[in-house]
Amino acid sequence: MSAEFFEVVRHQRAHRSFAATPVDDDDIAAVLTAATYAPSAENRQPWEFIVVRETSARAALGDLMRRAWDSGGRTFSESRVSPKMLADVERGMTGGFAGAPVFIVACADTERGLEQTVASSMFPAIQNLLLAATARGLGSALTTIAVGFRAELTTLFALPPHVIPVAVVPLGHPARPLGPPRRDAFAAHTHRDRYGERWSAST
Amino acid sequence: MSAEFFEVVRHQRAHRSFAATPVDDDDIAAVLTAATYAPSAENRQPWEFIVVRETSARAALGDLMRRAWDSGGRTFSESRVSPKMLADVERGMTGGFAGAPVFIVACADTERGLEQTVASSMFPAIQNLLLAATARGLGSALTTIAVGFRAELTTLFALPPHVIPVAVVPLGHPARPLGPPRRDAFAAHTHRDRYGERWSAST
Repeated sequence: MSAEFFEVVRHQRAHRSFAATPVDDDDIAAVLTAATYAPSAENRQPWEFIVVRETSARAALGDLMRRAWDSGGRTFSESRVSPKMLADVERGMTGGFAGAPVFIVACADTERGLEQTVASSMFPAIQNLLLAATARGLGSALTTIAVGFRAELTTLFALPPHVIPVAVVPLGHPARPLGPPRRDAFAAHTHRDRYGERWSAST
Repeated sequence: MSAEFFEVVRHQRAHRSFAATPVDDDDIAAVLTAATYAPSAENRQPWEFIVVRETSARAALGDLMRRAWDSGGRTFSESRVSPKMLADVERGMTGGFAGAPVFIVACADTERGLEQTVASSMFPAIQNLLLAATARGLGSALTTIAVGFRAELTTLFALPPHVIPVAVVPLGHPARPLGPPRRDAFAAHTHRDRYGERWSAST
């Protein structure tokens, strides 16, 4: 299996509905191996991944997402995103994500990596995971909404106190193909030497 | 130019010395475009990139890194990493990084994205940038040590108060090729359904 790097990058999307088709262990191994190649502070590799296939645990994760959404997430986002995006996210939070055959709960071991470097050490690995999923034809999404329920996640996955959940990634074969993501051109947010000297000014 | 996705992932390394060869605008455009395809909370794309080529600004960034290293970074890391890694990082902090022909200062606009989602929205984009650099044959490194000097960076790059520096990425043609990175096997940090149920146990 071969995938061109920039093609993969351009086609990564947040998937919020999944086919029932199971995900092979080989695919899980490929995406988690990719995750481990990301850089981390002092090369501490602080990640611990929980691969969740169990029906009850997936349902519990789905419930946490729905609760977080119902208890403030929706209200908060209503005024901030387009109606179309709100409807997309709503579908994910209230059942779409829960339909994923696998969740990967990405955690940081704070005895291995320092707490202040958790974010810079974990999100690059998580991004590698998401890209690798795209390269293998899988759908995924970066979600952090359930991470607010740290106590619940700790109980659900028997996490030791020094292992903290950072993101919950639903993973599965896409229910349907998605087009490329919508993004501003990089030049709209790029400056030469100092803020305000637009990239495009001298090209 | 074509690069296989998993090859790129497996060959990303932290580069700490660079050739004097300039980096083309086309390469900068490619790596920043890749950055923009990363996911971000509410698709807010909070990134602002300062592409630093100016000699004096690069020297100032190098000075900040050296100061951060001399004033605590070295002492802190001495007891935590191997002598070889310490020597590598030392070379970067005291001149290797400063020799990069370009720095990209990755900032977050907190008026566009919320402060609590800065990390989860910025580090995936930065990881795309680092991978894309690898795909284009460029060396790079994820550094955050200079970010502690927020006031200095704000002055140096004329950042508005709502734009906060998150990482400083030196970018250039590698001084020499580096082998693949050293990582633990993913299975050493992967669990089935709950923490402690090792992946390898059932494969």
